Amino acid sequence: MYWGETMRDNLIKHFVKTEKPSREALKEEMAAQRAKLSGFQLKIKEAKLPVMIIFEGWGAAGKGSVLGEVIKDIDPRFFSVAKMEAEPTPEEKRKPFLYRYLVELPEAGKFKFFDTCWMEEVTGGVLNGTYTQKDYRHKIHSIVTTERQLTDNGYLVMKFFFQIGKKEQKKRLSALASDKNTSWRVDDKDLWENRHYDDCLEVYEQYLSDTNRPTAPWYIIDAKDKKWAALQVLRYLTQGIDTALKNHALAVPILQNTFPLEPIPYLKDLDLSKTIDPKDYKEELKRLQGELRDLHYELYRKKIPVVIAYEGMDAAGKGGNIKRITGALDPRGYIVHPIASPEPHEKARFFLWRFWNRLPKTGHIAVFDRTWYGRVMVERLEGFCSENDWQRAYNEINEFEKELTDWGAVVLKFWVQIDSDTQLARFTDRQNTPEKQWKITDEDWRNREKWDLYEEAINEMLQKTNTSFAPWHILESVDKKYARIKALKIVVAALRKACKKAE
Amino acid sequence: MYWGETMRDNLIKHFVKTEKPSREALKEEMAAQRAKLSGFQLKIKEAKLPVMIIFEGWGAAGKGSVLGEVIKDIDPRFFSVAKMEAEPTPEEKRKPFLYRYLVELPEAGKFKFFDTCWMEEVTGGVLNGTYTQKDYRHKIHSIVTTERQLTDNGYLVMKFFFQIGKKEQKKRLSALASDKNTSWRVDDKDLWENRHYDDCLEVYEQYLSDTNRPTAPWYIIDAKDKKWAALQVLRYLTQGIDTALKNHALAVPILQNTFPLEPIPYLKDLDLSKTIDPKDYKEELKRLQGELRDLHYELYRKKIPVVIAYEGMDAAGKGGNIKRITGALDPRGYIVHPIASPEPHEKARFFLWRFWNRLPKTGHIAVFDRTWYGRVMVERLEGFCSENDWQRAYNEINEFEKELTDWGAVVLKFWVQIDSDTQLARFTDRQNTPEKQWKITDEDWRNREKWDLYEEAINEMLQKTNTSFAPWHILESVDKKYARIKALKIVVAALRKACKKAE
Repeated sequence: MYWGETMRDNLIKHFVKTEKPSREALKEEMAAQRAKLSGFQLKIKEAKLPVMIIFEGWGAAGKGSVLGEVIKDIDPRFFSVAKMEAEPTPEEKRKPFLYRYLVELPEAGKFKFFDTCWMEEVTGGVLNGTYTQKDYRHKIHSIVTTERQLTDNGYLVMKFFFQIGKKEQKKRLSALASDKNTSWRVDDKDLWENRHYDDCLEVYEQYLSDTNRPTAPWYIIDAKDKKWAALQVLRYLTQGIDTALKNHALAVPILQNTFPLEPIPYLKDLDLSKTIDPKDYKEELKRLQGELRDLHYELYRKKIPVVIAYEGMDAAGKGGNIKRITGALDPRGYIVHPIASPEPHEKARFFLWRFWNRLPKTGHIAVFDRTWYGRVMVERLEGFCSENDWQRAYNEINEFEKELTDWGAVVLKFWVQIDSDTQLARFTDRQNTPEKQWKITDEDWRNREKWDLYEEAINEMLQKTNTSFAPWHILESVDKKYARIKALKIVVAALRKACKKAE
Repeated sequence: MYWGETMRDNLIKHFVKTEKPSREALKEEMAAQRAKLSGFQLKIKEAKLPVMIIFEGWGAAGKGSVLGEVIKDIDPRFFSVAKMEAEPTPEEKRKPFLYRYLVELPEAGKFKFFDTCWMEEVTGGVLNGTYTQKDYRHKIHSIVTTERQLTDNGYLVMKFFFQIGKKEQKKRLSALASDKNTSWRVDDKDLWENRHYDDCLEVYEQYLSDTNRPTAPWYIIDAKDKKWAALQVLRYLTQGIDTALKNHALAVPILQNTFPLEPIPYLKDLDLSKTIDPKDYKEELKRLQGELRDLHYELYRKKIPVVIAYEGMDAAGKGGNIKRITGALDPRGYIVHPIASPEPHEKARFFLWRFWNRLPKTGHIAVFDRTWYGRVMVERLEGFCSENDWQRAYNEINEFEKELTDWGAVVLKFWVQIDSDTQLARFTDRQNTPEKQWKITDEDWRNREKWDLYEEAINEMLQKTNTSFAPWHILESVDKKYARIKALKIVVAALRKACKKAE
């Protein structure tokens, strides 16, 4: 037996077929449900509710045609469809497993149908033998975590499994195959699925059971009749939307930390007097950049993805620090993402979305100049998100970084620190130097007034996200040169270790 | 390794100790949090929010004294404490595992502290080797299900685990043991726990991970300092209550059925013309009652609990049918529970509470004259609960009955059916016969007007709760005698089977 000894709920085996209404009654209710769904359009938009609807199920169960029925009366500006392939492309395989789904996330106020989603990929991996049990458990963990993150962040996630029997499937596949206009729709996988119906059923049931959570439950659709299947989907959909509209934007529990955290000093206890001799700096810089250059090619060959995250006080010297890293890199193999406040289309999605979207592929380096930690600093302090949102974010961020390191990425997080006096001096210098004036804004001065609040938020952030798999590195940057060499040393050491491990 | 290969979240190992405030700040915040909690008293009462607070943790972690600190300013009419023993008494062992906890459920608008709850019993069972892995998984399933039922039904369930290190525990146990006033508080179990700290930690972590759900999450309390531990609890408590008050009485998703259901005919398709010859009736009755009498003693010896549930149309003959069963039983070994509308203290709790409360002990028979199915019949049709409530109830009821059968109970459910004309004749007869007039009320006539609505609700109920482990038995009762013999035969056969199995 492939599966562990778990208590499996048999969702498919035991699902209750609701009595199919008469032809007349069905037609009538279908119209009523469609009208209801249309009526929800505006409400969903007003409430800024993002809706993710997942269709999974047997080959030839009619997901596509039911989708057509369901969306018949909905304004096309209001929804979209993501047709996901069962297998990622070679390009997509160079991103984390969840990437190709998450980039498709709907924005607030819209709804999006996923014509198959992560289930198909995962059950496929089990059935074709490419997954070990550990792989499977890991993917399930990622999926349950992601679905919880989405619903915690206000998404409505509805999951439908289209159920047909073995004989029915066989009949449909034969009919499709015998017509030359539709024969292309029957692939080897469908035929294999039908021949191994019982094995597939077991794998599907285990998956459904493992991912069936009250916040994102499964609905099994009796898909023997297309119109009737559409009506079932519509019933659940309108009920789900109704509930979600009522529950939208409510606080959710803050989960306890479950990640290994390492101790890290408070900002006030840092020794910011560290310096480097300018001559040593020059030599070290040259040496380290040379090493980094070589390592960059090595990690490219070994397909190791790297994420370097910079955060720090204003005018701490992040930009100059980043330049000393990227100066050593082949421009075809890295990208710097300057992170400002989110664009409207980014703000309309789960806050980590814009970072998922910017992940490097394997063998590449992505440097983030400011990051997802904005959530627990500026967004917290300026009230751009709710208290519940930023309190939840520590865990969500740890989960995100765990996903990255489990994928195989090297994740390096730098906190670039200066003291308040140094900041004042640099601000004043920027103000008084014409070619530096673009670097200083009123906002910088306003933020400076909140130094103490920031320090408190940063301390909390460092304590709660200093995981052993993605620890923070403090760069004492009163002497910027010192900070640059320290950063380079850390990057070089981390990449060397990763390259060695990948041998 | 005892545990399956699951992905365990290490809640204790990785929990973040929040920085302890200074003595002054702690005192101040403690007062503020206590005031906040006091302020919630009225709101909780008004919102009719039931609050269940669970304290678990290491021996000598200070659960009791922290509890004292937390409740200091709360009006004693407003909360209560259930001090649960680690082990059930012999009497409690004759009820289902969850029984002794569930009878303690707080009512709406009150809050109740459980000074240890089901965790201690389950982890104890693992540690002392009385549980198999299957037992453990089963208990976890029951607990997760129950906690979900409670939160779905509007309960706030907050779970605290009091954490201290091995050395700290040892120190405390020694201090307690060396003082003759406190030495009684140190038992062998505490000492064993300290000696096997690491094994216990592993078991506790697995339990916490297995039962940590967003709707009823765990909070780990750094319990090294009593006042500080109390403040941590207060912080989580006020935050949790605040959230719960906002989210209270919202609809929750209806979960898909996961129970094996058997086909059952619709009421309209029943053959109600079945009769029995009066002479045969007399003989059969005597024979079956004799058999039942013997079986009653046998199941008493074999400690098999029996639950017989009667539902049916008004005037269908439930009372007379029940009498023919109980007429054969030793009065010391059965009880009949007539179920009317719930008392205020029952209405103030989860709807299944009053039935949990009335469960028989092993070896005994409980007959319910009307049952928990009121939720999906009268409560549904009269609007005594929300649509979300009764729609959820099919699953909750199946879960309840599964719990009973897994415990080892024989669960027999009778639906006693007559047609509308027969009901009218019997109503009229009751109305016109002085000694039967007490049996007929205006409400009966009003219900009769809703015959069609009831029929629809009953059909849905029968379809959705006709599980293979607790199936419905239809008693065609136009000929009451026929129905009585049929019931007796079913009871006798079921008890015989159960007694045989228990050999």
